[in-house]
Amino acid sequence: MAAPAQFTEYIDKNADKFIDRLAKAVAIPSVSGDASYRKHVFEMADFLKSELEALGVKVKLVPLGKQVLDGQEIDLPPAILGEIGNDKSKKTVGLYAHYDVQPPSSHSKLIDKPQALLSDGWDTDPFVLKVDEKTGRLIGRGSSDDKGPLLGWINVLEAHVKQGIELPVNLKFCLEGKFHRMEESGSEGLDDLINSEVGPGKFFDGVDCVCISDNYWLNTRTPCLTYGLRGICYYKINVSGPAKDLHSGVFGRMVHEPMTDLIHIMSKLVTPQGDILVPGINELVAPLTEEERKRYESLDYSIDDVHSSAGAEIAVSSSISEVLMNRMRYPSLSLHGIEGAFYAAGAKTVIPARVAGKFSIRLVPDMLPVDVDRLVTEYIKSIFNQLNSKNKLEVESLHGGKPWVADPNHWNYVAAAKATETVYGRKPDLTREGGSIPVTLTFAEALGVNVLLLPMGRGDDGAHSTNEKLDRSNYIEGTKLLGTYLWEVSKVTEK
Amino acid sequence: MAAPAQFTEYIDKNADKFIDRLAKAVAIPSVSGDASYRKHVFEMADFLKSELEALGVKVKLVPLGKQVLDGQEIDLPPAILGEIGNDKSKKTVGLYAHYDVQPPSSHSKLIDKPQALLSDGWDTDPFVLKVDEKTGRLIGRGSSDDKGPLLGWINVLEAHVKQGIELPVNLKFCLEGKFHRMEESGSEGLDDLINSEVGPGKFFDGVDCVCISDNYWLNTRTPCLTYGLRGICYYKINVSGPAKDLHSGVFGRMVHEPMTDLIHIMSKLVTPQGDILVPGINELVAPLTEEERKRYESLDYSIDDVHSSAGAEIAVSSSISEVLMNRMRYPSLSLHGIEGAFYAAGAKTVIPARVAGKFSIRLVPDMLPVDVDRLVTEYIKSIFNQLNSKNKLEVESLHGGKPWVADPNHWNYVAAAKATETVYGRKPDLTREGGSIPVTLTFAEALGVNVLLLPMGRGDDGAHSTNEKLDRSNYIEGTKLLGTYLWEVSKVTEK
Repeated sequence: MAAPAQFTEYIDKNADKFIDRLAKAVAIPSVSGDASYRKHVFEMADFLKSELEALGVKVKLVPLGKQVLDGQEIDLPPAILGEIGNDKSKKTVGLYAHYDVQPPSSHSKLIDKPQALLSDGWDTDPFVLKVDEKTGRLIGRGSSDDKGPLLGWINVLEAHVKQGIELPVNLKFCLEGKFHRMEESGSEGLDDLINSEVGPGKFFDGVDCVCISDNYWLNTRTPCLTYGLRGICYYKINVSGPAKDLHSGVFGRMVHEPMTDLIHIMSKLVTPQGDILVPGINELVAPLTEEERKRYESLDYSIDDVHSSAGAEIAVSSSISEVLMNRMRYPSLSLHGIEGAFYAAGAKTVIPARVAGKFSIRLVPDMLPVDVDRLVTEYIKSIFNQLNSKNKLEVESLHGGKPWVADPNHWNYVAAAKATETVYGRKPDLTREGGSIPVTLTFAEALGVNVLLLPMGRGDDGAHSTNEKLDRSNYIEGTKLLGTYLWEVSKVTEK
Repeated sequence: MAAPAQFTEYIDKNADKFIDRLAKAVAIPSVSGDASYRKHVFEMADFLKSELEALGVKVKLVPLGKQVLDGQEIDLPPAILGEIGNDKSKKTVGLYAHYDVQPPSSHSKLIDKPQALLSDGWDTDPFVLKVDEKTGRLIGRGSSDDKGPLLGWINVLEAHVKQGIELPVNLKFCLEGKFHRMEESGSEGLDDLINSEVGPGKFFDGVDCVCISDNYWLNTRTPCLTYGLRGICYYKINVSGPAKDLHSGVFGRMVHEPMTDLIHIMSKLVTPQGDILVPGINELVAPLTEEERKRYESLDYSIDDVHSSAGAEIAVSSSISEVLMNRMRYPSLSLHGIEGAFYAAGAKTVIPARVAGKFSIRLVPDMLPVDVDRLVTEYIKSIFNQLNSKNKLEVESLHGGKPWVADPNHWNYVAAAKATETVYGRKPDLTREGGSIPVTLTFAEALGVNVLLLPMGRGDDGAHSTNEKLDRSNYIEGTKLLGTYLWEVSKVTEK
């Protein structure tokens, strides 16, 4: 069942009003990773509460406790729990989005995503939404990540209220104010809240499926549904030797040097082609099915797309399905750097006394952090023993998160696919993401329901970079998509 | 011919006066690596000029031009050229020392020697000489490196002048004010000056031998003469791939990662036992002679000494002569660090876009930087080619300096050995240093005479660290040693 015509007409007619709403939201610099911005994160929560309440949503702001940031103890931004509709005959859809943003500066100490390490600045004020009529871009921090998608749901509500259309489903909003910084390693406070709100009479009681709009199309052309995320295990290999840094003139070749040992270990983790050398890791990976293989072969993505997004012709293979499977359904191992060694410009002749190599493995089903930890630790110890060094080794696991994958044949996905066909006139690609959004797994495990990632923006939105944008057409058609998805869910008869 | 008895008596009687002179010198914070201290370096030059002139030395301060330091263009400290005596029937001894010091702080950005990276602070004010009566230590920045040895020469002059003893040799002082920071890579300005002052009628005309007092005993017990220094070649391996840093979730296993390539290359340079893996390098090393082997076997040094100076039981061998030869007469290769990778604490999931591995090779005879450069560059390129990576490689040589070795059977060394036996009652060890003092090679090559390194301090003086000290006995007996050495030189009949 497509959404009623009045719904889509209202969206088209009120596009400029919706863009104004986005401008208002972008103007609130709800940067979660900097203590000095914290008041604006609360301001954003208040803004959303009033927008939601004006449309009939019952809202409560739930405090999540304190955190230490920039050397001070401050309040965590609240979770926003909102509900509208309580009709047992309707499906109930859980909705998640986050209302905080990345720091605007490309050099902020708080940036987790390396795209934001670019030295280029913004072309416009990041907290003033720039509507570029020529390109159709809506430029501003948070436009695509994640204020645009979040406001999409509010726009959907408004269209129904203003047109007097009854909502086809019950909705439960769970909006987070401290997603950034936490995205790779779990949501501080929110996981506990979600787990505590599960069960008869609790907030999430009765939720039939969850929809999260917080990722992007694979490319700039084709809508997609995302049914998997990789997990991550992050490791630190500590090698220590002398009591203090030594001079390589005096001590070179007299003593075992920690850097030499560490580099030897790190060189045995992954090949230049990306193959993981830790024994047993590849055996944990779920075998590829024929259905899956076909799905990857049909995705709208090319080696040129890889090269254009990396900015260099460095794809590990000329087969695009292989490259995409490497990102989406195989584990990867990346060497990030070394703590304790000489890292500045120039030519220091130090023998560092203790060095720590950092690397992470992206996990896919059926890899569990506990198994990966064991295999990695045993392997590194065995390599180190073969080095016959008198230095000391310690392997640390800094954090671990499981991969997530959903059944893309579930009615939740079928509904989203139909909605996409209705709005965009084409079938969506079925994708998995290489990164992690741990709250997805929390919803899936705590609620025991199907979770869908339904992106609004495009692959080139630059969500954590400068000049973040959301295309006007993605915002407006994406709003239609969200509403239409609710109508498609409403006609599902399965539980 | 030992020095006259009045000489040594004067030294003993005036020990406290000499310690006062050292206190005055230490009180001038002549830190050369920090622009804000530069005026004190000039102050130190003036202090030395007046001390030398008061004892009859003809002194000129030679400007060496400008340098850029801490973002400002400032004057380089002057070279001090001083001469006393012009008796053609006597030998002429060239003397080198430096009058600048390392920064006192353990965290200064300017520190080249890694010992100074220690986080421990000083127990006393580094610029107030602390005379510790219990331990006999004279504690202060520059006490051992190099103000104590420099003032030793002035004490020797004073003893002669005050006792009415004619100097047995002519002396030519060449004192440098910007040794630190430059010590591994050459002396800015001074090399040119030395080269320009060679030849008939020039300052260094007639110099028969050079004595440099700017290193240390191998241990805390046995005086030594030092007849060799290793050279150094410093390299930077640049690997670049994507146009910007990438997110390992999104790009992990899709693209060739520069860090993976670099780590593979760096792992193929040296074994954990210190053996250099660059083909052809070991073949450049002069073969070990039987005389040399015996010299190393007779040195007063033990594996316990190695462990105690490194602060950990990490010697690469249980054979002390092997370990000492590794330091003194074999090349070494140390991996210093990586520029461009993640180096901070924490767990960033970056794929760095461009990384640069830093390493250096210590050179011994007959290794020449030009040959080492060629072998290293060819080898790294061949390893990289085998990696089948699409990233880009560039190998840079940051600087190169030749090794230096003198003939320890030369009369200059014989004189110093006799002086040592006279003052300390024992034969000195004949050592080579693992580090570099490039000015040594400049003197040897420009003047074409034998150069001797005659250390005053002990191996535990902590010359570039906190709580730098010179033992009172090393300062006073060392002053006698310098004077006695001049008298021994004076009786040499060979040219």
